[in-house]
Amino acid sequence: MQWSSEPLIEKEVREQAFTIECEGRNVPGLLWTPTERASDIPIVLLGHGGTLHKRAHYILATARRLVKQHGIAAVAIDGPGHGDRRERIPEDQEQARADFVTTWLAPGANEKIVADWRATLDATQAELGTGPVGYFGLSMGTMMGIPLIAAEPRITAAVLGLMGVWGPNQDRLVEDAPKMTCPVRFLAQWDDEVVPRETVLDLFDRLGSKEKSLRAHPGRHVQVPATEMGGIADFFASHLK
Amino acid sequence: MQWSSEPLIEKEVREQAFTIECEGRNVPGLLWTPTERASDIPIVLLGHGGTLHKRAHYILATARRLVKQHGIAAVAIDGPGHGDRRERIPEDQEQARADFVTTWLAPGANEKIVADWRATLDATQAELGTGPVGYFGLSMGTMMGIPLIAAEPRITAAVLGLMGVWGPNQDRLVEDAPKMTCPVRFLAQWDDEVVPRETVLDLFDRLGSKEKSLRAHPGRHVQVPATEMGGIADFFASHLK
Repeated sequence: MQWSSEPLIEKEVREQAFTIECEGRNVPGLLWTPTERASDIPIVLLGHGGTLHKRAHYILATARRLVKQHGIAAVAIDGPGHGDRRERIPEDQEQARADFVTTWLAPGANEKIVADWRATLDATQAELGTGPVGYFGLSMGTMMGIPLIAAEPRITAAVLGLMGVWGPNQDRLVEDAPKMTCPVRFLAQWDDEVVPRETVLDLFDRLGSKEKSLRAHPGRHVQVPATEMGGIADFFASHLK
Repeated sequence: MQWSSEPLIEKEVREQAFTIECEGRNVPGLLWTPTERASDIPIVLLGHGGTLHKRAHYILATARRLVKQHGIAAVAIDGPGHGDRRERIPEDQEQARADFVTTWLAPGANEKIVADWRATLDATQAELGTGPVGYFGLSMGTMMGIPLIAAEPRITAAVLGLMGVWGPNQDRLVEDAPKMTCPVRFLAQWDDEVVPRETVLDLFDRLGSKEKSLRAHPGRHVQVPATEMGGIADFFASHLK
């Protein structure tokens, strides 16, 4: 873990940028920790959604809540072609979406993302010790997160959602969802205009975890209620401590 | 409200049995309050499920949590033909179910139950003042609760579930569900062997409330996880205070 910035300390939360190397790729990330650090604290991996980046508003808010309210560390990385890994600044939403398709949804991309995350977790544990580990990712963060969780026994709790048996990676989801065993909270938006409701319920149905709960609310894809978003940190606190 | 027992005080919770008269019917109930009573405290009506009664285990547990953890009063009544209103002691589960059908599902029964509850609420408010009011009822408690909530503007928060657009009262549910406006948490059991999942999702879909959330867990009809049951009191605390 190579630090790429000075630490930024704000209201008891320490944020520091880093890069790690994985299979020749430079992966940029952010690590959030309490200013007073204990050993072997829990770590939650935060996987951002498609066209977004490691410091998206809801990622940052969740990271700060984990650290401040619960003393849990958080780490986020940019997905391939996202954030600091973009090869061009997209001119509009359409171009951003096109870049997203050519990077995240390319053949073999999923294996690379899983490898990036596992290398990130190795590096984070080298810094913070081997406390319990969680994963949070919505939408594309779920599409990429399910194969990661299925492959990574260190992850013992997850908050997922806004994704279904849908899109170009759906065969992979159908294969990996039943392999999940950790407790999972799964968010769904009842009026999701991006991912059809039936496919979301179908994906929840296929999760292998015995302890799983579906939480659905009215509204569109990005309209998860603030109280639900705020409760994500509490879920990890009760499962990782 | 006519007291029919001495108060039973256990660990800061006061329980007292009562009867009220409604349209010539004697309705037996239980009132739970904090031992140190404040004025205009919130009140939650607890509607038990089919073949059960006002002191069913989960009703009692919820009542005690409301009072003890949040200082909220709780009140439960026996449904027609249930608990102390039974006309015979059923010999087996089958007979209990038959009695249930001839009393709760008889023509006009729904209006009577709504009237019983409204009279109970009048009497309770005469005792405790006019604080905010909630309703909790699962399964048959939802089938009977939705028409009550649709008719009763004093109810401003509800926890419902384990019921669908299903059974002999389904036309009434289809009519009244869209009239609901209060915030509602709706529980569903993913492997419900009594009420088919699709009908449950359909009923959630029809609830008129803008603020509604579906919480689904794996398991059969009566296997709602303990943590979810335990959180019901917290929901009312955050909505009625």
